Amino acid sequence: MEGPYAPLVAPDVPLVERKRRQARQRIIDAADELFLANGFDGVSVSDIAERAEVGRMTFFRYFGDKQEVVFAKQEELLAMIAAAQSEAAVSAPRTVAEAIEQLRPVVLELCARVTADPESFTRHYELLASHRELHARDALKTQQAAGTLRALLVHRGCTEDVALLAAEVAVACYQTARQLAGDPRTLPEKAATAFDQLHTLTSSNARTSAGSARGDAGNR
Amino acid sequence: MEGPYAPLVAPDVPLVERKRRQARQRIIDAADELFLANGFDGVSVSDIAERAEVGRMTFFRYFGDKQEVVFAKQEELLAMIAAAQSEAAVSAPRTVAEAIEQLRPVVLELCARVTADPESFTRHYELLASHRELHARDALKTQQAAGTLRALLVHRGCTEDVALLAAEVAVACYQTARQLAGDPRTLPEKAATAFDQLHTLTSSNARTSAGSARGDAGNR
Repeated sequence: MEGPYAPLVAPDVPLVERKRRQARQRIIDAADELFLANGFDGVSVSDIAERAEVGRMTFFRYFGDKQEVVFAKQEELLAMIAAAQSEAAVSAPRTVAEAIEQLRPVVLELCARVTADPESFTRHYELLASHRELHARDALKTQQAAGTLRALLVHRGCTEDVALLAAEVAVACYQTARQLAGDPRTLPEKAATAFDQLHTLTSSNARTSAGSARGDAGNR
Repeated sequence: MEGPYAPLVAPDVPLVERKRRQARQRIIDAADELFLANGFDGVSVSDIAERAEVGRMTFFRYFGDKQEVVFAKQEELLAMIAAAQSEAAVSAPRTVAEAIEQLRPVVLELCARVTADPESFTRHYELLASHRELHARDALKTQQAAGTLRALLVHRGCTEDVALLAAEVAVACYQTARQLAGDPRTLPEKAATAFDQLHTLTSSNARTSAGSARGDAGNR
């Protein structure tokens, strides 16, 4: 339901930084292949480093532990989408409803990109389901995603309180979509529906009383 | 800002079950004391079992691992609050807004109860902050709390889709409050404000178009 997104292009970077990124990417790809072949517990950091043709020290320069590399792709995608969005000339959201709406395209683009290769997406979740600690780390990463979304809103001039709640609600829409999307290809659509359900509820009131959200908050 | 809550009383249970609960509680208390004295990594399951005067086998009958015991109190509180609420004669919420409002008192009661002993609450978060795996497990427990809230709504006859989104949004309010409540005693108030901010936005529209939320969802 979303149009195709343009490739995410990293800004021009010096050679040394490009080399760093290539090494990092090799580690991610090597880990992907090894986890698929041998399972998470059947692969050591040394295995990954060897296949990526880097030293163990280099691995740990990029990733705190073996679990981190599992989430690198999605984390990087969100960071790049948020960075691209923070370049856009968008005015500060004045209400929670506006702030949530500003996060909608970010979350939908993330959903579209993480499921662009549905099989890889499915493998990712199978890996998480196979391992309790990975499942927990995934939950932590989702919380950290809320931090990235909040920072984008704050960058646009949103107040901290509004940004915090809007980011958590945007993540709630993402989490809902993840649980409803049996087929990964439906993830963007499910996320859009979740935002729609909140938006349908909030929009007419938000239009007529923009700005009242925070002022009224304590008066119930 | 919330009135005092009545003590949560477990229903009458047979002796063998009471003994089980007492053993479980002794394990939780022993772990609490030992983590406070020696830190999470300085305490083994054997240490906890010994102090609680149970065997290691008994520990693992109640808790999957050492991390689980850290979250037992909050998990149990939520389960008891949700159980008490599921006894109440409340009709099925028809919209996401109604469903979120039905979860408000559950989340606020949880906030009030977990902070009833502010020092213990602060110690809990200090323990989480000290340990990355605990931090991740906490994130997982928060996701599981959404499952408990969703089940309560479904029990009341709410549709799965609405229950799922409402539960995730209720957790978003809780997460927002946790991050804003520098002083634990303000947690219930911060959570109420988060619900208010969404409610202020949603209420007037929800009143005039109850039931439209799902029907309109796909039409933007």
